[in-house]
Amino acid sequence: MKSLLKTFPVIVKIPVIWGDMDSFQHVNNVIYFRYFESARIQYFETLGWMDIMEKMGMGPILGSTSCRYRIPLSYPDTVFVGAKITEMHEKRFTMEYLLVSEQYPEPVAEGTGVVVCYDYKKNQSTRIPEVIRLSIEKLEDRVFEID
Amino acid sequence: MKSLLKTFPVIVKIPVIWGDMDSFQHVNNVIYFRYFESARIQYFETLGWMDIMEKMGMGPILGSTSCRYRIPLSYPDTVFVGAKITEMHEKRFTMEYLLVSEQYPEPVAEGTGVVVCYDYKKNQSTRIPEVIRLSIEKLEDRVFEID
Amino acid sequence: MKSLLKTFPVIVKIPVIWGDMDSFQHVNNVIYFRYFESARIQYFETLGWMDIMEKMGMGPILGSTSCRYRIPLSYPDTVFVGAKITEMHEKRFTMEYLLVSEQYPEPVAEGTGVVVCYDYKKNQSTRIPEVIRLSIEKLEDRVFEID
Amino acid sequence: MKSLLKTFPVIVKIPVIWGDMDSFQHVNNVIYFRYFESARIQYFETLGWMDIMEKMGMGPILGSTSCRYRIPLSYPDTVFVGAKITEMHEKRFTMEYLLVSEQYPEPVAEGTGVVVCYDYKKNQSTRIPEVIRLSIEKLEDRVFEID
Repeated sequence: MKSLLKTFPVIVKIPVIWGDMDSFQHVNNVIYFRYFESARIQYFETLGWMDIMEKMGMGPILGSTSCRYRIPLSYPDTVFVGAKITEMHEKRFTMEYLLVSEQYPEPVAEGTGVVVCYDYKKNQSTRIPEVIRLSIEKLEDRVFEID
Repeated sequence: MKSLLKTFPVIVKIPVIWGDMDSFQHVNNVIYFRYFESARIQYFETLGWMDIMEKMGMGPILGSTSCRYRIPLSYPDTVFVGAKITEMHEKRFTMEYLLVSEQYPEPVAEGTGVVVCYDYKKNQSTRIPEVIRLSIEKLEDRVFEID
Repeated sequence: MKSLLKTFPVIVKIPVIWGDMDSFQHVNNVIYFRYFESARIQYFETLGWMDIMEKMGMGPILGSTSCRYRIPLSYPDTVFVGAKITEMHEKRFTMEYLLVSEQYPEPVAEGTGVVVCYDYKKNQSTRIPEVIRLSIEKLEDRVFEID
Repeated sequence: MKSLLKTFPVIVKIPVIWGDMDSFQHVNNVIYFRYFESARIQYFETLGWMDIMEKMGMGPILGSTSCRYRIPLSYPDTVFVGAKITEMHEKRFTMEYLLVSEQYPEPVAEGTGVVVCYDYKKNQSTRIPEVIRLSIEKLEDRVFEID
């Protein structure tokens, strides 16, 4: 199961909570985005990004996100959420998420998120700082072409 | 603001709750999917679908969903979520959601959801029952080509 | 139903959301505290308290809370949450909550919350400012003995 | 830290999720009841209770619950929630919860929950089955006087 996540530099482990299930007795569709968010925030923490951006008066904003549900989850189980950055633009980048669980050999869900770099003082999107792009490239062990 | 929703046959009104905001002091990205879900369920209720499908041993399952965030929401505010069906296939259809709020003249967010008709006895996707497709066409006031 | 709330100076109206139900197909026990919180925040807004306290570098902190569940809620329904302050101390006060719904003639739940006035600069509880105690007394239309 | 939990026969470990924090940048008060619920459900699972009661057409219902907040939690952290049964009555029992975290040497919060045994066929509370009371006594390693 975990081999599915080997290309993901950031992985978070979260227990499935009984209260995350809805009337259909499966984990509610909304919770998957909480899982993705947890991996996204962990990714930012790994980069030390939250601190850097706060000092610079800028921060990451979620522009759009999506989820493709493959297998319904239920309690008890434990999920592992992988996050990686797959595309880099001047002011934004795209993340991919993969959700696997202890109960299933195949992926439970996959998702995407477009994160925009936002300047809080100017109230507009702004270039991703060089220091952050470099630390992403180091974490992903690749160089991004910026299109 | 509400004129933005005039092409949506189902609209739900939900107050923004203080507790739906996160550390960034805006409504958390996950909550938008709760808004979409509320409109989706209301759509099914309007069709009387939940009852019909339960009797037939089948039900709607969310296959995928997405959200494009345009304006950050905050408390206090009230949102209106429109839902309409825009594409029909043999075993699934696509919904579109539009989120508007009392505080802004433009849409706050928009989303999509692909809903699959699922046979709980056979554990596989199944054709959308004729009675349901017809009631959707009546509610949407249009005829769908099925591709 | 609403007559049950006539002694409550602050009342908020919240639709029951399908996604707030859990596997037992009733509104999850946790959500009731979200309802109470919404009434509590509305109470503070009514007093203009959030602004006053922010300027003073102090804020309300929830010290303890409780809920007594009487009737299980389910979707669809609409709840009304009343909040009033029933006891005043030097540095804290007690709120009572009453939850009623459109579906039932009797109260659905009742709760309490002890709110402590906290000085963020000194990191300790502090006296409730006179201006706030007076505005509470005006809203409650009574004078509190402070014990 | 964990020694605080040594008298609790059931303990669950849950990571603090970034999205569980609210505008005050601490874990929202409502989430603590999600933590308690997770320990309560785990307690029932440990007893095999969910299955037994389902077969008997009865189940546990939360009658009331409370929380005393001692230390504000924030991300990142990991909490441990202990649950034990401290009082037994004919048709209900009282649970106590203790919440500790990796970041603090003292308890973060404590709570209580009164659980009522409910007969779903007769729609009324009912006696706790002997088999369940005995398995609770075994797990708690004590005999309860029933008052």
